[in-house]
Amino acid sequence: MTASTRIILLAHGSSDRRWCQTFEQLAAPTVESIDNAVVCYMELSEPSLDQVIASSVAEGFRDFRILPLFLAVGRHLRKDVPAMITDLEARHGVSIALLPPVGEDPKLGLAIRDVARGILESDQ
Amino acid sequence: MTASTRIILLAHGSSDRRWCQTFEQLAAPTVESIDNAVVCYMELSEPSLDQVIASSVAEGFRDFRILPLFLAVGRHLRKDVPAMITDLEARHGVSIALLPPVGEDPKLGLAIRDVARGILESDQ
Repeated sequence: MTASTRIILLAHGSSDRRWCQTFEQLAAPTVESIDNAVVCYMELSEPSLDQVIASSVAEGFRDFRILPLFLAVGRHLRKDVPAMITDLEARHGVSIALLPPVGEDPKLGLAIRDVARGILESDQ
Repeated sequence: MTASTRIILLAHGSSDRRWCQTFEQLAAPTVESIDNAVVCYMELSEPSLDQVIASSVAEGFRDFRILPLFLAVGRHLRKDVPAMITDLEARHGVSIALLPPVGEDPKLGLAIRDVARGILESDQ
């Protein structure tokens, strides 16, 4: 990781604007507190991963970490995104690391527990 | 919420066993710390929502809260799950409340920020 590393929060994308708004809210604490963090979409929504890589390269970034805003690994993260990364690295001469999806981090399970506890407390 | 209320963590389900294992891990802190909390799947995996409602009714539960392990509302949560709930309520004579997906709770965005911070720290 160097000063020119960009962290990309990658969501699936949807034609439903409300779906994207939820992801923008999910990404907001990260984007607001971490320099060089951005959110983008695999398909159907903008900015796309392709757009973010292109504009970041124009800004001088050469090193990227993709943190998928997915709960688990499915076909997209096993096949589609790695193929997109191979193509983007070749076209832009950059390095892109694909991290495990956020759902594999134990912090998410603890947050879900806290959400469930909040439901119990609000009912009492 | 009564002593006989069951909290159901509902994931989508997948034919990929590894996908379900991620959700079991995501649900573990909730299931281990909250009485009457269980995890099940909308389709493709077991236990299904239908199975969990049926076995819970046999245990004496009549009141359910479904907390979707989804990051945002899409077609499944807008149409498919409400239709399943209407059917299950009629068949079993129970009350089932569908909560917003975990991804709409601000705690998830904060957890994602902490995951991203952990990535930065592990690189230093």
